[in-house]
Amino acid sequence: MTAPTLPKHDRQTLAANYAAIRGQTEDLCARLEADDYLLQYDVECSPPKWQLAHTTWFFETFALKEFVPDHRPFHPQFGFLFNSYYEASGPRWARAQRGLLSRPTTAEIYSYRTFVDDRISSLLNTADDETLARVWPIVDLGLNHEQQHQELLLTDLKPAFACNPLQPVYAAVDDVASVTAIPAKWRSFEAGVHEIGHAGNGFHFDNEGPRHRVFLEGFAVSSRTVTTGEYLEFVEDGGYRRADLWLSDGWAECRQDQRDAPLYWCERDGVRMQFTLGGLLPLHHAAPMTHLSFYEADAFARWAGLRLPTEAEWEVAAGDAPIRGNFLESGCLHPAPELQDNFFGNVWQWTASPYTAYPGFRPAAGALGEYNGKFMCNQMILRGGSCVTPQSHIRRTYRNFFPPATRRQFSGLRLAKEVPS
Amino acid sequence: MTAPTLPKHDRQTLAANYAAIRGQTEDLCARLEADDYLLQYDVECSPPKWQLAHTTWFFETFALKEFVPDHRPFHPQFGFLFNSYYEASGPRWARAQRGLLSRPTTAEIYSYRTFVDDRISSLLNTADDETLARVWPIVDLGLNHEQQHQELLLTDLKPAFACNPLQPVYAAVDDVASVTAIPAKWRSFEAGVHEIGHAGNGFHFDNEGPRHRVFLEGFAVSSRTVTTGEYLEFVEDGGYRRADLWLSDGWAECRQDQRDAPLYWCERDGVRMQFTLGGLLPLHHAAPMTHLSFYEADAFARWAGLRLPTEAEWEVAAGDAPIRGNFLESGCLHPAPELQDNFFGNVWQWTASPYTAYPGFRPAAGALGEYNGKFMCNQMILRGGSCVTPQSHIRRTYRNFFPPATRRQFSGLRLAKEVPS
Amino acid sequence: MTAPTLPKHDRQTLAANYAAIRGQTEDLCARLEADDYLLQYDVECSPPKWQLAHTTWFFETFALKEFVPDHRPFHPQFGFLFNSYYEASGPRWARAQRGLLSRPTTAEIYSYRTFVDDRISSLLNTADDETLARVWPIVDLGLNHEQQHQELLLTDLKPAFACNPLQPVYAAVDDVASVTAIPAKWRSFEAGVHEIGHAGNGFHFDNEGPRHRVFLEGFAVSSRTVTTGEYLEFVEDGGYRRADLWLSDGWAECRQDQRDAPLYWCERDGVRMQFTLGGLLPLHHAAPMTHLSFYEADAFARWAGLRLPTEAEWEVAAGDAPIRGNFLESGCLHPAPELQDNFFGNVWQWTASPYTAYPGFRPAAGALGEYNGKFMCNQMILRGGSCVTPQSHIRRTYRNFFPPATRRQFSGLRLAKEVPS
Amino acid sequence: MTAPTLPKHDRQTLAANYAAIRGQTEDLCARLEADDYLLQYDVECSPPKWQLAHTTWFFETFALKEFVPDHRPFHPQFGFLFNSYYEASGPRWARAQRGLLSRPTTAEIYSYRTFVDDRISSLLNTADDETLARVWPIVDLGLNHEQQHQELLLTDLKPAFACNPLQPVYAAVDDVASVTAIPAKWRSFEAGVHEIGHAGNGFHFDNEGPRHRVFLEGFAVSSRTVTTGEYLEFVEDGGYRRADLWLSDGWAECRQDQRDAPLYWCERDGVRMQFTLGGLLPLHHAAPMTHLSFYEADAFARWAGLRLPTEAEWEVAAGDAPIRGNFLESGCLHPAPELQDNFFGNVWQWTASPYTAYPGFRPAAGALGEYNGKFMCNQMILRGGSCVTPQSHIRRTYRNFFPPATRRQFSGLRLAKEVPS
Repeated sequence: MTAPTLPKHDRQTLAANYAAIRGQTEDLCARLEADDYLLQYDVECSPPKWQLAHTTWFFETFALKEFVPDHRPFHPQFGFLFNSYYEASGPRWARAQRGLLSRPTTAEIYSYRTFVDDRISSLLNTADDETLARVWPIVDLGLNHEQQHQELLLTDLKPAFACNPLQPVYAAVDDVASVTAIPAKWRSFEAGVHEIGHAGNGFHFDNEGPRHRVFLEGFAVSSRTVTTGEYLEFVEDGGYRRADLWLSDGWAECRQDQRDAPLYWCERDGVRMQFTLGGLLPLHHAAPMTHLSFYEADAFARWAGLRLPTEAEWEVAAGDAPIRGNFLESGCLHPAPELQDNFFGNVWQWTASPYTAYPGFRPAAGALGEYNGKFMCNQMILRGGSCVTPQSHIRRTYRNFFPPATRRQFSGLRLAKEVPS
Repeated sequence: MTAPTLPKHDRQTLAANYAAIRGQTEDLCARLEADDYLLQYDVECSPPKWQLAHTTWFFETFALKEFVPDHRPFHPQFGFLFNSYYEASGPRWARAQRGLLSRPTTAEIYSYRTFVDDRISSLLNTADDETLARVWPIVDLGLNHEQQHQELLLTDLKPAFACNPLQPVYAAVDDVASVTAIPAKWRSFEAGVHEIGHAGNGFHFDNEGPRHRVFLEGFAVSSRTVTTGEYLEFVEDGGYRRADLWLSDGWAECRQDQRDAPLYWCERDGVRMQFTLGGLLPLHHAAPMTHLSFYEADAFARWAGLRLPTEAEWEVAAGDAPIRGNFLESGCLHPAPELQDNFFGNVWQWTASPYTAYPGFRPAAGALGEYNGKFMCNQMILRGGSCVTPQSHIRRTYRNFFPPATRRQFSGLRLAKEVPS
Repeated sequence: MTAPTLPKHDRQTLAANYAAIRGQTEDLCARLEADDYLLQYDVECSPPKWQLAHTTWFFETFALKEFVPDHRPFHPQFGFLFNSYYEASGPRWARAQRGLLSRPTTAEIYSYRTFVDDRISSLLNTADDETLARVWPIVDLGLNHEQQHQELLLTDLKPAFACNPLQPVYAAVDDVASVTAIPAKWRSFEAGVHEIGHAGNGFHFDNEGPRHRVFLEGFAVSSRTVTTGEYLEFVEDGGYRRADLWLSDGWAECRQDQRDAPLYWCERDGVRMQFTLGGLLPLHHAAPMTHLSFYEADAFARWAGLRLPTEAEWEVAAGDAPIRGNFLESGCLHPAPELQDNFFGNVWQWTASPYTAYPGFRPAAGALGEYNGKFMCNQMILRGGSCVTPQSHIRRTYRNFFPPATRRQFSGLRLAKEVPS
Repeated sequence: MTAPTLPKHDRQTLAANYAAIRGQTEDLCARLEADDYLLQYDVECSPPKWQLAHTTWFFETFALKEFVPDHRPFHPQFGFLFNSYYEASGPRWARAQRGLLSRPTTAEIYSYRTFVDDRISSLLNTADDETLARVWPIVDLGLNHEQQHQELLLTDLKPAFACNPLQPVYAAVDDVASVTAIPAKWRSFEAGVHEIGHAGNGFHFDNEGPRHRVFLEGFAVSSRTVTTGEYLEFVEDGGYRRADLWLSDGWAECRQDQRDAPLYWCERDGVRMQFTLGGLLPLHHAAPMTHLSFYEADAFARWAGLRLPTEAEWEVAAGDAPIRGNFLESGCLHPAPELQDNFFGNVWQWTASPYTAYPGFRPAAGALGEYNGKFMCNQMILRGGSCVTPQSHIRRTYRNFFPPATRRQFSGLRLAKEVPS
């Protein structure tokens, strides 16, 4: 969201990046049936066709309307229909009713994409350097936004497929039920002042900065995330029946829903199974546990006599580990057994940190200032990216955030504890 | 639903009828875009694709499974997915979630239709006479059921189209804004004992019988239904702001929704318009008022110093008037100005009668006994058929019923009053 | 509500009647603790103190304000606080929040009662004959209204006491668990035209008229209401688990609440008990079954292969039976075993008739026209009065009405069936 | 909650303290009418009589049942009725239904208080030193708990009084509308590592520790809280109509409720007024603004180009300022104009800090561990105490917490900003 000094106005690279990321979205949709495009599981989810249009609206609204003189919008009402939550961009279609938009048709939305892609391409090719310097961060932001929706396309589709008795398969997922997990090791860090947050020139969201100092008491984090098999022990030890393990809000939710297992687990003929993007599979004991709410992650940690790391601890522990792992591009579409000391991919890791502003944070002026800043309440930070996050999208300083009850994301946990200094 | 003595086992006629009515459903869907098939406005509405499947399920469940030895169902879960409300047919998919069934795809549902149509055709051709005599009424019921869903396909589509800012057009509707209405005349009937209800051999729903005696005090009914122009006078006279005109439940609903006009009316640049299946049109003053709830119809009658007829009064007044008028087959898809003394088509007419059993009524045994009988509470009777009712579907004794708040149907009213005997 | 020709202006009788009925209300409250006066179980119920004030408001609003020149209201806001549902009397305090009115205090409300009683007494003593002739029906209506609230005081208190783990006792109820019920006999009536409704000079509610003709096919009704023991057989025969016995709305309600027994029944140590105004007691098998909804009454009748009588059948069958039985004045406060052919007291009897206007019915002008008329939708008729109805309040033509789901009233059923003529 | 080394077992002091604090609760109730004791505005509030019983239950459950051999409970069901949220203490009466407990009567609850007070007194007098050392912290905790309920008695009463059209007065509040506010000054603090949290021997809640180090960038806080007059400027500048000032959740709430002013403000004849415990008064411009939600406090700060302090900043800034100011004991019952550099009393001050565990925090074992720990999610920290907080209850390290939407408390804000180091 900030790009103060562009190293070089490499138009070809940006245009190629644009084409690649936009194309990746459409590749993800290529596996859908025509009937799936309108599918909206509930108010938290958006239909694929709406997401195809909304990501396009983002480029049209913030790049074309701003930087292309005399730009004529593709359709006079798309600004209303495909604005998500930007108050500064005017009124918008109700989120809960996105699944009612059978029109425009999916075909018309693909035409909209082509229309906008052509004009962005033209803008990147023909803008003068000064304009390009201003367009660049907007397009960069739009591409990161598009990548977030690639993840959402899959996480929003999953509950609708999971509830369907026909249990549709989005794409095959390897069955790794027989693999064994690596041992978890403690990695310790001494008390002291650390710097966290983003400081460099590359793309990052505004909420990742300013870089600033924090004091951390001594701590240790695990070398890998909690596995499905470990979480199963918690379940079978009565984890969902012991109030003392839960935050009050989490316990209330469990009792209200009479919940006794995590999302997407079910039983078939007495055997525990999990619903995946590849259909119903056995539990993968060695793979990271996923689709946990913050409450579940926190309860598991308490059961284990441990705790979640804060986001500062996580970032310090991640250090300069390389960004590698099981991301969207692996095509795996489900968490796979972890490698030692890998902090990225597989599952977003809940932290103990509520989502708040870093010291000195100021949101940008105008609509784009709403991207992250206005959500800094009632949400918890997750770190690391997941098996449906595009690899180029993630950073060590990346702050994902969701309300603590959220289970739809590929979210798990890494354990932490105090260490006497 | 009862066909005790079939006049003649005319297999060809029944098969042709079957083909024609099933084809009419698919013709209605031919105007839809692929995106429309999953569209479910709310829990009261069903998506087109679900209706295409459900009407097919009806024939498979009640005809093929009962009368075709060794019938193998098209799909083991379609019985669960496409049962509507038949408790005796087992559990079923929740009504509110019909819009989540992106799978089976629409294409698969059309295959299901072909599968069942082929087998029904074969059954009608090859059954022995005795079997045919038992199959006949089931198929007849299934066809009447299919016709009900033809009407519902359109009334369930309309709110979703109406709320869409793009205001899609299902099919062109003639603009008859300049036509003048015929004058309304009183038709009087003396006090006395009358017979109402169905008694003949032809198809009729179980709730239309037994034929029985009622005593009616002297009454008169209007020669035509209330027009849009007349209802507009009520609106502009403050009809939606005068509590004294309304039943308590109707008034509560008006105030809760801050309602000041009927469904599908809106204003554009200060001019009142109506949303129709042909898009947004000016009000048609001469055409029958439609999309009224029972509460609105009742309030209008009270405002006029009159009342709604009871269903017995309506049936007596309709006498042996011919079944003609503006039905689905006219292609008009909206009420058109009335002819004098025509009781059928255009708009369903709310009566003052709650939906109850006629004396001596007994529902059939088994699942088909649930068709009508279990709804005999909290609903009001409507008579006469509408502009989206297939013409061959309606009868003088036909009892339609909906909860009094229902506005989605093409429903209006005919005025009545007491006449001293 | 109508009193066209007063036989004689017997001021003393009316004043004595006024004093007696008003006093009876306060006698009912004498058994309450101070803490009970604010108790509102839910939106359907009103706190005792609100009822004490509302009934007083009725006299002040419709008698004193109308007929006492220069009447100064007791308090300027009581008109707002204690209006129930009379739109013509202006805005009012929300029904759901009556339990928030800790002020005015109960003591102030008793002062309000005294204030109004004094002025009504004075009005009855000093009005000229012409004024008295107009006041009389209003006061008569107010007293009948007061009597309705005597019943409501107890039926609204009961659920709040029943849910309290301390299970408070309002007043001792005799345990008649060991009594045996009388046998039920059929009383048959031939088909023909009958007159029903009120026609005389005595007090009656407007909805009881006009007297009019109805045609009834031959029918029979039982000589007594259904007993608790009989209903227990239904329960133990799986009545709450058989969808085929229930109207659709009733079944939905049962399933939603996972109901398997009627209101106020519970189990203690494996024994079925009932909560009464006298606390927890064993079931009284011989006593009339009570606290049934219409759905339950209808389901029971269906289970028995029978049906509920219509209100016309009930009224014809009741003929000129004397108004005697187990009423409020007996102090029993619970249904007691029936006598043969007694139609009154013990339990209100659900009929098969929705609450609609009789032919020619016109509500009165003004606020009092709202008393009954605006509720003529979505309710069912009950007949006969109950063990908490004041005896002088009931008539053969009396039409009580409640939504079909209502279980809070002392409501049961009498069986009926067709009889070939 | 922790009292590791008691300086001296001064039984008299503790007993006197017990008597004084328990008596203070009853003094607060002495101003209530009998009718007020059952009053429950909504699920967030508890009736006075329930609070009188619940605070007593606390002593009986955690002191008498634990430390008095053969203690016989006052009533076998009070444990069920008056447990608030302690899962480890067993099931409990639903919070939303506390207002249904007309029984036990208020008189019985006062008897319960006497019963428990007598036994606590006896325990404190007769326990051996070792037992006393264990009882002491429990009794101390119970007294602090009692003090929290003294505040809640008034904050829970206020909305019920405010909604009552009679606008009852709890106790007179001085009208200080004409006073002028002191000027606000910035107090700056340099960047560095600080210690926060409780470390001493005196009573403190578990969530106030462990004492630990934090790094703070340079900051400044205001010398006083925001005044009503300043907040009025925000309101009149369209603060409630500018989405850009609000967190997304706060804005959604404003729009849903169509809110355009803070809680307890209203207009009378075009003049803005505030409802206080002393009834309706003019706005007190110089007094601290109160009854703000976190969202409102945050929006105001944003409007002012500033921010809220974190709780660490607040604690550092409060330094060793004396605990003095406008507390419950002043009898003022409403915020009064501030003194310079006073951090305590008047209004709880929202901080920018979500309520989370301090590093190394461990809740106590058993039911008392539920006191604070299980609420560490979805709540924000407030500091400083209010005009209805007992003075002896507050500490510099005291962490109050409420969900960000809470407006019922006497809650305002103190402004802060970054200061370059």
